[in-house]
Amino acid sequence: MTTIKRKKITVVGAGFTGATTALFLAQKELGDVVLLDIPQLENPTKGKALDMLEATPVLGVDANIIGTANYEDTKDSDLVIITAGIARKPGMSRDDLVSTNAGIVKSVTEHIVKYSPNCYIIVLSNPVDAMTYVAYKTSGFPKNRVIGQSGVLDTARFRTFLAQELNVSVEDVQGFVLGGHGDDMVPLVRYTTAGGIPVENLISKERIEAIVKRTRTGGGEIVNLLGTGSAYYAPAASLAQMAEAILKDKKRILPAIAYLEGEYGYNDLFLGVPTLLGGNGLEKIFELELTAEEKAALDKSADSVRNVIKIVSQ
Amino acid sequence: MTTIKRKKITVVGAGFTGATTALFLAQKELGDVVLLDIPQLENPTKGKALDMLEATPVLGVDANIIGTANYEDTKDSDLVIITAGIARKPGMSRDDLVSTNAGIVKSVTEHIVKYSPNCYIIVLSNPVDAMTYVAYKTSGFPKNRVIGQSGVLDTARFRTFLAQELNVSVEDVQGFVLGGHGDDMVPLVRYTTAGGIPVENLISKERIEAIVKRTRTGGGEIVNLLGTGSAYYAPAASLAQMAEAILKDKKRILPAIAYLEGEYGYNDLFLGVPTLLGGNGLEKIFELELTAEEKAALDKSADSVRNVIKIVSQ
Amino acid sequence: MTTIKRKKITVVGAGFTGATTALFLAQKELGDVVLLDIPQLENPTKGKALDMLEATPVLGVDANIIGTANYEDTKDSDLVIITAGIARKPGMSRDDLVSTNAGIVKSVTEHIVKYSPNCYIIVLSNPVDAMTYVAYKTSGFPKNRVIGQSGVLDTARFRTFLAQELNVSVEDVQGFVLGGHGDDMVPLVRYTTAGGIPVENLISKERIEAIVKRTRTGGGEIVNLLGTGSAYYAPAASLAQMAEAILKDKKRILPAIAYLEGEYGYNDLFLGVPTLLGGNGLEKIFELELTAEEKAALDKSADSVRNVIKIVSQ
Amino acid sequence: MTTIKRKKITVVGAGFTGATTALFLAQKELGDVVLLDIPQLENPTKGKALDMLEATPVLGVDANIIGTANYEDTKDSDLVIITAGIARKPGMSRDDLVSTNAGIVKSVTEHIVKYSPNCYIIVLSNPVDAMTYVAYKTSGFPKNRVIGQSGVLDTARFRTFLAQELNVSVEDVQGFVLGGHGDDMVPLVRYTTAGGIPVENLISKERIEAIVKRTRTGGGEIVNLLGTGSAYYAPAASLAQMAEAILKDKKRILPAIAYLEGEYGYNDLFLGVPTLLGGNGLEKIFELELTAEEKAALDKSADSVRNVIKIVSQ
Repeated sequence: MTTIKRKKITVVGAGFTGATTALFLAQKELGDVVLLDIPQLENPTKGKALDMLEATPVLGVDANIIGTANYEDTKDSDLVIITAGIARKPGMSRDDLVSTNAGIVKSVTEHIVKYSPNCYIIVLSNPVDAMTYVAYKTSGFPKNRVIGQSGVLDTARFRTFLAQELNVSVEDVQGFVLGGHGDDMVPLVRYTTAGGIPVENLISKERIEAIVKRTRTGGGEIVNLLGTGSAYYAPAASLAQMAEAILKDKKRILPAIAYLEGEYGYNDLFLGVPTLLGGNGLEKIFELELTAEEKAALDKSADSVRNVIKIVSQ
Repeated sequence: MTTIKRKKITVVGAGFTGATTALFLAQKELGDVVLLDIPQLENPTKGKALDMLEATPVLGVDANIIGTANYEDTKDSDLVIITAGIARKPGMSRDDLVSTNAGIVKSVTEHIVKYSPNCYIIVLSNPVDAMTYVAYKTSGFPKNRVIGQSGVLDTARFRTFLAQELNVSVEDVQGFVLGGHGDDMVPLVRYTTAGGIPVENLISKERIEAIVKRTRTGGGEIVNLLGTGSAYYAPAASLAQMAEAILKDKKRILPAIAYLEGEYGYNDLFLGVPTLLGGNGLEKIFELELTAEEKAALDKSADSVRNVIKIVSQ
Repeated sequence: MTTIKRKKITVVGAGFTGATTALFLAQKELGDVVLLDIPQLENPTKGKALDMLEATPVLGVDANIIGTANYEDTKDSDLVIITAGIARKPGMSRDDLVSTNAGIVKSVTEHIVKYSPNCYIIVLSNPVDAMTYVAYKTSGFPKNRVIGQSGVLDTARFRTFLAQELNVSVEDVQGFVLGGHGDDMVPLVRYTTAGGIPVENLISKERIEAIVKRTRTGGGEIVNLLGTGSAYYAPAASLAQMAEAILKDKKRILPAIAYLEGEYGYNDLFLGVPTLLGGNGLEKIFELELTAEEKAALDKSADSVRNVIKIVSQ
Repeated sequence: MTTIKRKKITVVGAGFTGATTALFLAQKELGDVVLLDIPQLENPTKGKALDMLEATPVLGVDANIIGTANYEDTKDSDLVIITAGIARKPGMSRDDLVSTNAGIVKSVTEHIVKYSPNCYIIVLSNPVDAMTYVAYKTSGFPKNRVIGQSGVLDTARFRTFLAQELNVSVEDVQGFVLGGHGDDMVPLVRYTTAGGIPVENLISKERIEAIVKRTRTGGGEIVNLLGTGSAYYAPAASLAQMAEAILKDKKRILPAIAYLEGEYGYNDLFLGVPTLLGGNGLEKIFELELTAEEKAALDKSADSVRNVIKIVSQ
């Protein structure tokens, strides 16, 4: 068969993050994009997709972008990005949030798998480590095909703050984090560099600590500023980068939430680790020797994820 | 003086259109970006700018992006894009909307001119022909430095629908419109081509008419779908393209809202015409011979703009 | 099968044009690139490919680029671009040149077809209309999978000269040509526009004629300036654009050398016509009504191609 | 003055490296490009520039590119890249090569300074450390405005070989070198990473040593393969990256040949060190603590450069 077809990518959840992800995917001409949300939001979803499509002549890219509430339109997707889920509401317990979103991700995954049995799945829904676990268990997919996003975003924030501190290009700052998202993030400062130079040689210990702290709470900083809603530009850019790594078989080394079977001493757990993303999805996990302090922090992060997984496994 | 400095671009109005415009400007690395909104929205504005900044390491671009409510931060901007203004609310008369937005644009322009006396101004605020007139009169700038956006967006929609009809790349469809935005748009179908071939040779008259009608009401189509708010992806892409034409002195031929002094037989009026955008802003207006029918449509469009300008001139 | 693999593109002929084409393909991240030349040039071919590969970290693209003289390395290419052939030498008759290059293209095609029976083929070798015919007949491929390049290059030159004349962006000038390459080119000036405006409205008849003449002899102008060798930057960019249209299924409307079966009144002939290039290769030929003068010029161009094809068919 | 003008960049030397550099500069739309060579090569220089210009409509970029042998055409350049010089010929002593190229670079610099007294200069001519010294002394420019290229190229090769070894994206491998070009290169393996992970954790010591050795002789490897001439794709990409850092004020941390006044213990010497490149040219030198072994290697490299400078200072 010689016909060359565009890749097909579905983004589930047409909120700010999902819509912005669709935009970045289209800008990269990675394929045609299906933006899907619930039937009650079908029209706004169609509206966002159409508005974006109408930008393509000006952006100079060819990508069909459609909005829908019908999973049939997602048929034969190569990649599905799940951003669906609710935000925590006042008075809602954390467990209630987890249960609600687990139900959403489970249902989404069932529908996705039905129409795209060969796709790759990237999960962003919160809490992301546990939601990736839900998508994995629900899909029945092999572990290389279900991946969670947190580390690209956490390092993006880390890199931004470090670049500002040094007044250098963001392109030249490389950060390194392990573990869960946000508060549970385990930054490996000794592997964090500017132009290849360890930042420990360039920035005082106090300032690095302040930057690490700001990075950990980077999501909350945006939430507090926005007043309603949470960050979407940097999360969407992170998702699009992971998507590109897979769809172009780029073999990028990116931090991602991977299913662990013994790596770093953990089992049956999704946790943020350095991975290789390529045409087979999550192709490899890089294992690093950790200091005792780093291992302890990672254990804490793992415990925290395990506790959430318990809720979704009930 | 040999130091090379980045250009500085201010976007006034940090709603969806303003924020998305800031994103596109940063992606193109056209300069540093100041996103400004009213003091009541200072924090969300800061939040959007910070979120966007945190995407830059992943997007691979260097651009400082800040959110502010303080015009001092806009000092010495090379280009200012005005997207500020309110949307029409239920029960509000059209004249009230015009008056309110005229007041906003007047105030914004006064502040902008104070801090950036040498900038170029692109206006998107609605109704855009009249608001460009307000910015022009308020600024006291020469006419090459105050420009309104509507034609890039209208042609983007026109091109999108034509490309869909023909199932061809959006890159190869060129549309041509004159006159006011939306309903008053005067499409010149005989100058509209796909791969250089007049679309009249490729698409039936009925279908072209249907597409023209859909283009005219393209803004309303998105408004109806979204339920609340209006289009922002395609408008933002259009603004960014005009900004790029000026900041890179590209000498693009783009439809824009220009101050007319005799061109097409009109005076002291802002109207959508084909223009040359480059390092001197709106460098030239292209005058075309029109058919009687086209001229009549353009007259109608001009009348409509004049009526709105009357309101803002009172 | 869920693994996502990069596309594979072979460029036959590692001279300036072939090598520069490989560079543009890599920059667009369209796939991995095999640069192939004859065994006597194996080392320089490897050298160019390696040098190019060593540029990829700086260019920020992932593409494996190899140089080889072994057709086995081209196995399972999705697209093959043939630039091989000799240049006319002093004392060589035109017929001798045609025969020699026909032999080269025939041999290349046989090898290519053996290892990549499902590929698309784009031919640049000179004289291109006849060489595309040779590749078509040799390959036994359906006509949508064998395409020649000339019109993208001819219009690129036409657009460049028009943009210079008008001092406008090259992005906004669209040219239109039919027929053979160079001297036989049939420019359709009435379909040639700047910002959608027919250039006949913007440039005097004399100047347009001078520009058309310069375009016709555009290849020769470069040959004369260079002293040895011929143009390669613009030809390579043209090949890469056609490759992108196919590999990304962009459905671009581009002038290309297509096999005609009745279109424009010709049969069993390759001639430059407006085409649709997408994931099925040359998906469509657009037929335009021509004036008597245009048709006469196209007939002349067709005759000229037929005469060359006679030589290669002997 | 509100007019926005494109930057102007001159490339001296229209050989393969110079011409390819001009292409990359145009592709990045960094400004208009003047390609200059000696009067005997005026026509081929014009030919290359015109061919490249004719590619711009297809590449979708606006950049005027001219070829010339007249320094008046370089007037008011913002940046000048010097690639001029001869290659070593059979029977020529190294000292003769150095003296000849020093004479060329001196003459070029005098002409450049006359017409562009405020420009930045990047030197590639060989041997590059000494030729940068010549350009610096001849120009009378402050040290931030005269910079040599070698480290970006050396690390590009290092990164390429490491990425191949690991089968990972070139985007994720960062290399680090100090000192002179090629044989004298001092790689800091402990600062060389893949995805932030030190390559020493990922690759055996033997393989790293082999890769370092290959990198040191990377230029020679290409020369041997090509048979005639030397590498130009990766050198040109390196020059364009440095140019972009300066012209866009990106504040990149890149290895470059900088004038040392005490840094690393050296004086009145140009040597490859980590630098900050931005709108003030070479804005900063990063000093690293070196191991005794590294310092010894750097001393050797410095001695080697000093010996060449002695020749040019006679």
